[in-house]
Amino acid sequence: MKIAVVAPSCSLNPEAADAVAATIAARGDAELLVHPQCFASDGHFAGPDIQRLAALREVMADPSIDAVWFARGGYGSNRIAEAAARDVPAAARAKRYLGYSDAGFLLAAFDRAGLRVAHGPMVQDILRDDGAAAIARALDWLTTESAAALEPGLQPKRRAMAFNLTVLTSLLGTALEPDFDGAELLIEDVAEHEYRIDRAMFHVTGSAAVRRCASLRMGRMSEIPANEPAFGSDAASIVRDWCRRSDIAFGGSADIGHDAANRVVPFYLARD
Amino acid sequence: MKIAVVAPSCSLNPEAADAVAATIAARGDAELLVHPQCFASDGHFAGPDIQRLAALREVMADPSIDAVWFARGGYGSNRIAEAAARDVPAAARAKRYLGYSDAGFLLAAFDRAGLRVAHGPMVQDILRDDGAAAIARALDWLTTESAAALEPGLQPKRRAMAFNLTVLTSLLGTALEPDFDGAELLIEDVAEHEYRIDRAMFHVTGSAAVRRCASLRMGRMSEIPANEPAFGSDAASIVRDWCRRSDIAFGGSADIGHDAANRVVPFYLARD
Repeated sequence: MKIAVVAPSCSLNPEAADAVAATIAARGDAELLVHPQCFASDGHFAGPDIQRLAALREVMADPSIDAVWFARGGYGSNRIAEAAARDVPAAARAKRYLGYSDAGFLLAAFDRAGLRVAHGPMVQDILRDDGAAAIARALDWLTTESAAALEPGLQPKRRAMAFNLTVLTSLLGTALEPDFDGAELLIEDVAEHEYRIDRAMFHVTGSAAVRRCASLRMGRMSEIPANEPAFGSDAASIVRDWCRRSDIAFGGSADIGHDAANRVVPFYLARD
Repeated sequence: MKIAVVAPSCSLNPEAADAVAATIAARGDAELLVHPQCFASDGHFAGPDIQRLAALREVMADPSIDAVWFARGGYGSNRIAEAAARDVPAAARAKRYLGYSDAGFLLAAFDRAGLRVAHGPMVQDILRDDGAAAIARALDWLTTESAAALEPGLQPKRRAMAFNLTVLTSLLGTALEPDFDGAELLIEDVAEHEYRIDRAMFHVTGSAAVRRCASLRMGRMSEIPANEPAFGSDAASIVRDWCRRSDIAFGGSADIGHDAANRVVPFYLARD
């Protein structure tokens, strides 16, 4: 079992890479290949677009690799997502892809291309409080598709997808827009003001494409900066209210978020 | 000439209202009706949705009012824009509407409904450095449609529209999405990080609807917070780059922005 790590957005912290490598060595159930591109740097990004894209395409095309694990989020995978999903090599179809947050652009692009993607912890999450639990869960899923790693509300035969809310808004109307038809849609976000959450929910629930989803569940919205003045409503009320206004079935909470408890949401449940 | 002021987003500062009233009294060319709703408060907003919507619909329906001037931006007009533009009363068609920033949701909704909207200074702008110049320009346009108030690059027979970039992204894929076909699209923004500007430009230029525009011009992007690490590109380069990537004709700079120099962009130039 070979797991390749690439960084389509921002650079990976070397301490995180070392800690995850040590975890895997102790487990003894997989081989970790951290692509050198993970430590490249070009302004905001882990190397220029062409370098990030080349590293990603390289591991996608490598038949010896069983899973591609995105190093971390930040910002930038949108800049290469459409190109990464174009003319996917046959070897890319035999592997799974794991990430969340900014990596949602790749989840959307790859899911559209028929690849097996999942929303879940990334390498850099080991630096979080209790981050070892997130990494253990991710590795359980990457190595064995362990059911214990899955978000507990998922239905085996229902298509599901999970996105960072802000990333989701940025997909609407683009060539990467997911097919929400009949899917359960899970959202989460971090470090966005309540007025931004409200605006994002206006946008998402105002999309005719999103309205075709079967239901929407809300993961954690964490590190919300203070609103000046007090917004007058909290994130959970905002999400419920926009679902009500748009006739989208609100399905309750989801066990995902920018934290160590973040569970895995495969997009291909109803397909395999 | 009667100008009504309502606040579809956040509450108007009473000092701004007084200063603008004094300006108009000194000019002697218009009557200003500041709706009491402007000073209402409900959490983030200038009163609850129902109150903001009612005030707006009231002045739209009043045949004695020649122009509706939005008090200020902030956030919130999206929550009432679709309802405000539904079944517009006949009297609403005989007036003009002026605002920008968050009011862009109303510009989009009203333009779709065939009303005569323009992107330009709002009442609260009098509190800016040199704010009197912005107010004088807005009043010149509101009272006489003065050509001197117009953004200087506009072509008389070409449809134009101007939006805050972040507001524009939030319109894509919704029922309020503008018809960009053949229009010159002007954008501006304030207080967004370079990575957010980059993501917004990815989104806007990735929209098949936006790609039907004739060209895009860039207004000012001001008060950009520091990016950590340095982003590696500035706002002007970001905008040009995404236009190039998406084959949208980049038309250069536009004299609009969150400042006193903000010029007026009527959306109905090619229609009247």
